[in-house]
Amino acid sequence: MRVSNFNAGPAGLPLPVLERARDELLDFQGSGMSIMEHTHRGKVYEAVHEEALSLFAELAGVPSSHQVLFMQGGAHAQFALVPMNFMQGRGADYVHTGAWSKGAMDEAKLFGTVRLAASTEKEKFTRVPRQEELDLDPKAAYVHVTSNNTIEGSQFHYDPDTRGVPLVADMSSDILWKKPDIAKYALIYAGAQKNLGPSGVVVVVAKKEFIDTGAKDIPKIFKYSTFAAVNSLYNTPPTFAIYLVRNVLQWIKSVGGLAQIQAWNEEKARLLYGAIDAHADYYRAPVEKASRSTMNVVFRLPNEALEEEFVKTASKAGLAGLKGHRSVGGVRASAYNAVTVDDVKKLVGFMEEFARKHRP
Amino acid sequence: MRVSNFNAGPAGLPLPVLERARDELLDFQGSGMSIMEHTHRGKVYEAVHEEALSLFAELAGVPSSHQVLFMQGGAHAQFALVPMNFMQGRGADYVHTGAWSKGAMDEAKLFGTVRLAASTEKEKFTRVPRQEELDLDPKAAYVHVTSNNTIEGSQFHYDPDTRGVPLVADMSSDILWKKPDIAKYALIYAGAQKNLGPSGVVVVVAKKEFIDTGAKDIPKIFKYSTFAAVNSLYNTPPTFAIYLVRNVLQWIKSVGGLAQIQAWNEEKARLLYGAIDAHADYYRAPVEKASRSTMNVVFRLPNEALEEEFVKTASKAGLAGLKGHRSVGGVRASAYNAVTVDDVKKLVGFMEEFARKHRP
Repeated sequence: MRVSNFNAGPAGLPLPVLERARDELLDFQGSGMSIMEHTHRGKVYEAVHEEALSLFAELAGVPSSHQVLFMQGGAHAQFALVPMNFMQGRGADYVHTGAWSKGAMDEAKLFGTVRLAASTEKEKFTRVPRQEELDLDPKAAYVHVTSNNTIEGSQFHYDPDTRGVPLVADMSSDILWKKPDIAKYALIYAGAQKNLGPSGVVVVVAKKEFIDTGAKDIPKIFKYSTFAAVNSLYNTPPTFAIYLVRNVLQWIKSVGGLAQIQAWNEEKARLLYGAIDAHADYYRAPVEKASRSTMNVVFRLPNEALEEEFVKTASKAGLAGLKGHRSVGGVRASAYNAVTVDDVKKLVGFMEEFARKHRP
Repeated sequence: MRVSNFNAGPAGLPLPVLERARDELLDFQGSGMSIMEHTHRGKVYEAVHEEALSLFAELAGVPSSHQVLFMQGGAHAQFALVPMNFMQGRGADYVHTGAWSKGAMDEAKLFGTVRLAASTEKEKFTRVPRQEELDLDPKAAYVHVTSNNTIEGSQFHYDPDTRGVPLVADMSSDILWKKPDIAKYALIYAGAQKNLGPSGVVVVVAKKEFIDTGAKDIPKIFKYSTFAAVNSLYNTPPTFAIYLVRNVLQWIKSVGGLAQIQAWNEEKARLLYGAIDAHADYYRAPVEKASRSTMNVVFRLPNEALEEEFVKTASKAGLAGLKGHRSVGGVRASAYNAVTVDDVKKLVGFMEEFARKHRP
C-alpha cells in the first residue's frame, strides 16, 4: 500500500506518473526498449526531451526572452555555476535566509565579493526579509535569493524588485507551486526532486541576454550558453529523469494546470497551518505568518520527546517523512505538488488526535 | 517485443534489471513508496547506495587504497574536474585517440599546459598507441587516456605504464567489460550509460592519496575530496540512477561476475569481427586488429548507400542502434555487457544474409 509521503526531497511523485513509467518501462511506445535505453540522439528520446522543455515553458508562461535548460549536478552545482558564469570579478548581492543561501554564498566567495543584501540570521531565519529591507548594490553582478527555504520553512511571497540588477533565484523547493512571473528573473534554477520529478536533473530558466553575458574562459560544460545553444543536448542528458519530468508536467496540465496546483497548495497550507494555530497550546510554527512556506510546513511540539513520538507514530499510521531537518529538529510536513489534499487531511486528523492523546 | 539493442549509449540494460525496477516501481520493498521517492538521508535509500558502492568495489576488485564515488554531470564534467582538481598550473600528458580525448583536452587547456604524450590522429584514430610510443613527461600532473574510443571503435588492450606519474582514464565505454587492474590507475571515471546503468550518474574510482592532492580553492561541489568524505552523499545524488546501477551490479554478480562477463564479451567480439573478416570482400573494419574494441565494433560496407540500407533493414529486423556516429559514418555495433551472445548471433546471421543479397 502506498503511504502519504511528506518527504522534503526526493519527494513523492504523482501516482499516474509512476504508473505510466511502470507500464512502459520495458517497452516505450512499441519501440522495443525502455526510454532509458534509447539513444539521446534519436527521434524517440528527442520527442520526449522537446516535450518536457516546451511543456515547462507553456505551463510556467516562459516568455520568448527566456529559455528553459536541463542540467545536472543538483542545485549545489548551480551554487558554483552562477558565480562562475556571471560574477567575473564583480561583487554579487546575496539574500541570506537559511542553510541553502549559505551554501550558495560559500561557493560564490571563490569568484568575487559576496555582499549581504539582507539576512534574517539573527532571527534564526524565522522569516524572509521584506522588500524595503533589501539593501541593494546597483553595481552588483546579480542578486541571489532562495525563494523557499526547505529546512527553515519560510518562503518569499513576493518577487523582489532589484531595480534593474539581474535577479537569480534558487527555486528548488517551490518551483511551479504556482505560475511564476518569469520575466522578473534573469535566472531561476531548481533541482527537480521536490516538485518536478526525481533527483538527477536541474531545470534552469534564464534570460537569453543574461546567458550571453556569461564568462568565456570557463569549461564548456559549465557554461549556460553551451546548453542553450543545443537545446540541452550538449552531452548525454539524464534521459530517464527528464522523461519523468515530462510525465509530471503532463500530469500538471491534465489536472488543470498551475491554477489548480496553486489552489490545492493553498488549501493544503491552510489546512496544516490551520491545525497548528487551532492547537496553539500544543503546536507552534516558528516562522512568522507572512513568511510561512506553502511547501514545507515546519512546527514544534511541547518537547523533543513528543516530537520524536509524533514522527514515529505518524510513520506507523502511513504518514511518512515528517521528521524535521537534522540541523533544526522538530516536525516538517513537506506538501509539494504531488501531496494530495487527502494526504494532508489525514495528517491533520492525526495531529488533532495526537494532541489530544499525548499531553506533556 | 524487446529488440536487440546495439545503441552506443544510453544503451540496453539487462532484462532482469528492468523487470525488477518495473515490479517495485510503485512500492519499494513494502516501504509504500518508490525508491525514487525515498529521501537520500533515510535508511532505505542509504542501504541501496551503500550496496551499489560495495558491489562495485567487490566485482572490480578495488583495493583499500582506492575509493568508489558517484558523481553527476557525465564524463564531460570529468573532462573539466580532473584538470581543475589536479593540474594546479602544471602540465598534464594526454593520449589523443579520438573525439572524446579531444573533448577532455579542450577542457584541460583552460587549467594548464596540455602536452600530447601520443596521438593517432594522423592515422584517423584507427588504432591506439603502443606502450613504447608514449612520450611521457615525468613532471606531468597526470597522464590521461581514453581506454575505449566509442566513436572510432578502438580500445587499449594494455594498462599504460606511466612510470610513476598518476594515470587517469576515461573508461566510460568499457568500464567493467572485464575485471580492471584498479591499482594501476590514480583515477578512473565512467558515465554509467554504457555498461553500468542509465545516464545521469558517473562512477569514479580514485586513489585516496591522489584525491587528497586535489586543489583546495575550487568549489566544494567540484572537489573529489568532498564526495570522498561523505560516501558520495554530499548533496542529493541521482538516487534512481544509482539504484539501477546497483541492480546491474547485482545482475553481474548473479551471472558469475566479471569472469563470465568477459567471456561473453570476448565471444561477442569474436563473432562480430569473425563475420567481418570472413566477408572481407564486403565488410571492412577500419581499426587495426590489435586495437579493435570489444565494445564498439565499427565497420564499413562497400558504399554509403548500402550502409544506410543495412541500418534500415536491420532495424526492421529488430536489430536496433547500428548507425555509426554522425562524425564518422558507417556501421557500429555496440555490444556492451547487456547485449547477449544471442543478440550478436542474430546480427551475424543478418550480416551474412545482407552481404549475400545486397551486392554493390
